[in-house]
Amino acid sequence: MLEKAESLRRIERLKGELRAQGLDAAVFIYPIDVYYYAGTRQNSLLLVPAQGEPLLLVRKSLSRARLEATIDDIRPFPSSKEFAAALPANFGKIGFTFDVVPVQQYQFYQKLFAGCEFVDASAINREVRSVKSAWELERMRESGRRLGEVFLQVPDFLKAGLREVDLAAEFEYRLRKAGGEGYVRMRAFNQELFMGLALSGASAVMPGFFDGAVTGRGLSAASPHGASQASLVAGSPVFMDYTGVFDGYIVDMTRVFSIGKLPDQLMKAFEVSLLIQNYLVERLKPGAICEELFLAAARLAEEAGLGNCFMGPPGENARFVGHGVGLELDEFPVLAQGFKVPLKAGQTIAIEPKFVFPGQGVIGIENTFAVSEAGGEKITDIPDDIVFV
Amino acid sequence: MLEKAESLRRIERLKGELRAQGLDAAVFIYPIDVYYYAGTRQNSLLLVPAQGEPLLLVRKSLSRARLEATIDDIRPFPSSKEFAAALPANFGKIGFTFDVVPVQQYQFYQKLFAGCEFVDASAINREVRSVKSAWELERMRESGRRLGEVFLQVPDFLKAGLREVDLAAEFEYRLRKAGGEGYVRMRAFNQELFMGLALSGASAVMPGFFDGAVTGRGLSAASPHGASQASLVAGSPVFMDYTGVFDGYIVDMTRVFSIGKLPDQLMKAFEVSLLIQNYLVERLKPGAICEELFLAAARLAEEAGLGNCFMGPPGENARFVGHGVGLELDEFPVLAQGFKVPLKAGQTIAIEPKFVFPGQGVIGIENTFAVSEAGGEKITDIPDDIVFV
Repeated sequence: MLEKAESLRRIERLKGELRAQGLDAAVFIYPIDVYYYAGTRQNSLLLVPAQGEPLLLVRKSLSRARLEATIDDIRPFPSSKEFAAALPANFGKIGFTFDVVPVQQYQFYQKLFAGCEFVDASAINREVRSVKSAWELERMRESGRRLGEVFLQVPDFLKAGLREVDLAAEFEYRLRKAGGEGYVRMRAFNQELFMGLALSGASAVMPGFFDGAVTGRGLSAASPHGASQASLVAGSPVFMDYTGVFDGYIVDMTRVFSIGKLPDQLMKAFEVSLLIQNYLVERLKPGAICEELFLAAARLAEEAGLGNCFMGPPGENARFVGHGVGLELDEFPVLAQGFKVPLKAGQTIAIEPKFVFPGQGVIGIENTFAVSEAGGEKITDIPDDIVFV
Repeated sequence: MLEKAESLRRIERLKGELRAQGLDAAVFIYPIDVYYYAGTRQNSLLLVPAQGEPLLLVRKSLSRARLEATIDDIRPFPSSKEFAAALPANFGKIGFTFDVVPVQQYQFYQKLFAGCEFVDASAINREVRSVKSAWELERMRESGRRLGEVFLQVPDFLKAGLREVDLAAEFEYRLRKAGGEGYVRMRAFNQELFMGLALSGASAVMPGFFDGAVTGRGLSAASPHGASQASLVAGSPVFMDYTGVFDGYIVDMTRVFSIGKLPDQLMKAFEVSLLIQNYLVERLKPGAICEELFLAAARLAEEAGLGNCFMGPPGENARFVGHGVGLELDEFPVLAQGFKVPLKAGQTIAIEPKFVFPGQGVIGIENTFAVSEAGGEKITDIPDDIVFV
C-alpha cells in the first residue's frame, strides 16, 4: 500500500510543476497515473488543483477506492448534471495526459469541464514520475531481488529439446509463484509485452513491432512477440529478457544462457556489451546528457566493429540503449538520439546493450540501475555472466 | 496466418459500411484493428479508401509486415513532408477510431492528413468485427478446445493449502505449454486483465475496477485484480475465470471447483446460473435484442431470490450478463441494459451468469457461444458441472 506521506510528496511536486507552467489543475484518468498520486487504480478521476486539496471521483469500485486511496476527499463519480457543482473551483487551464487518453474520453471530459481549456500535461507527469523517491527505490530493489532469484533458477530447467514457449512457461511459472503480478504496463501507443522474451538462436533475430532491439517471433502474426514454437538449439544463445512486476514496480533484465559453447564472435560481442554497460554505469550520474550516453555507446559498438548489429538486426537498428522504468516499462528518460536532457538522481533506467546476429542469435546484457552521484546503482544485482549448462 | 481471401472479405464489408455512412476512407493505427483487416499487427497505418485499394504504411518492422500482410500495397512510413504525396487521393471525411486513439496521435495524424475531416468510426469498426466469418469461428472453436483441455487438468493440481497465486501459476503454466499467447487485448479505456482470475472463497468477492461481476483481490493495490496470496479454503468455491488466446482469438470461460462440499445456498445459486445460461442459449439467435436477454436473465435471478447478488456484490452489481469476444475480450455486442440492438449470426458472446455472496465466495458459469439460427453454439465445450476434488 502506498503511504500517505509518500503520496502527499508526489502531489506537492506535481503542484509545483503545475504552478511553474501556469496550469490551474491537472486531471488524471489513466489508471497508473491515478495510482501514482492517489494510491488506488480503481476506475476514477483524480483532480489535483495547483492550489488546494485533491479530489478523487470514483466510478468503480468506490468501496475499494476508500480502502486504498491516500487522499481525503473521495466521492462517487457524479452524474453529468451534477459534475460542475462537485468541482471545488472554476479552473482555467487544466493539464490532461494527451499521450494516453483516447479521443472519446477527451471529448467527454471537455464537455464535463465546460469552459476549461485542456492542455497537454503528459511531459510534466512523466518527468515527475521519472524521479523515484527513497520509498520507490526500495520497492524497485525488492522487484530486482525477486526477479533475480528467478533468473538464478534458469539452469534448473533449461535443456535441449525445449521449445521457446516451454522455457517461457517454466520461467513465468516461477515468477508467478514468487508473487509476480504479471501484467506489464507500457505507456507508448502500439506497444504490448507479455512478461518478457524467451528466445533462442535465429528465432530471436526476427525483427518486429517492439520498440527495442529484440521482439521475438511469437506464436502467431496476431501475437508477434516473445517465445515461439521453435526449439532451443545447442551452441546458440538462449536470450532471456524478462520483467518482474511486484507491488506495481517493474524491473527489466536480460541474461544469456547456452547449451554448450558459443561461437567466438558472439563471445566477443558479449564482452563488448559488458564494456558498454560498464562505461554507461560509471556515467549514470545527475547531469549526464541522455543522448550523449547513447552516442558514446554506439561509438563503442562501432569501434568494436559491431555497429551494424548494435540494438537490432542490420538496417533495423533501434537508436537507443536504455529506458526509464518504474510503474511502467517505458518511462522517462530514454538514453536515445534526440533526448538532450540531463539525468536526475533517483531516475531508474534499464541499460541494455545488445547485438543481433542474423542467422545466429542475440547476445547482450540488461540491468536496471538507479542514477546516483556515485554512478548507476545496480538494482538487478545477480552476476552478468553467460551461464553455460 | 490470415488468408488473403478472408482479409479481402473483411475489407469489402468495411468499405460497404464506409460508403453507407458517407465516409471516403478509414484509417487504422490501433494494432489489433490493423491486424484484423491486413493480417499484420506491425506498427503501421492502414488506409482503406471507400473506393480503391488499401495501403499499409509501416513504421516497424517493414520486413516483417511484408511477410505477414495480406494486402498488396505495403510501403515504409513516409516522412511528414512526403506524406501527402504518398496518399492515393484527396479524402474528405476519414473514419478514425476515436475509442482507442490517444489525443497526441489524433493531433499528429490530423496534421498529416491536412484538409481532411476525421470522424469517429469506432462503432462501424466494432460492428464489422463483431460478426465472425466461418474462418474465424473455426479459430474460436480451436481456442475453445485448447482452453477447455487446460480446465480439465485443474483437478490434477488443485489442493488445499495452495494460495490463489499458486493455482494461477499452475493453470497459466499449462495454458502457455498448450501454446496460449497470454496477452489479452481489451479495448475499453481503464481495463486490464492478466490472463484470468484464480480466486477462492471470500477473497473472490472483493469489488474492483474490472467491468465484470468479479475482479479479485490481486497481489497489490497497483495490480488489484486476479489471484492474491490468500490460501484456498475447503468448503468454499474455487472460481476459475480464464481466457485462452490462440492465433489472436480469445475465448472466455469460468468453472467452479471445490475442495469438499459447498453450502446448499451456493449449490442452489449454481443451478440458477445454469438455468439462466440455458435460457439465454436457446435465445441466442439472430434478431434477439441484447437488452431483453439481459433483463430476462436479471428477472430469473430475481425470481430465484438472488437478485441482490447477481453479477456483483450487493450494491455494486454490473448490469450485464454477457459480452462479445474475439480478437479482444470486450467486443460487441454486450448483453446489457441500454444495448437495444439485435444479435447477428456469427457473433461470439461469452455468457456469464454469476452470483457473489459476501463472506462466502462467487459461483456461476461462463461459456463462449456463437450466435446461430439454432441458438448458441457452445464453443468452450466441456461439462459445466462443479468439480469436487
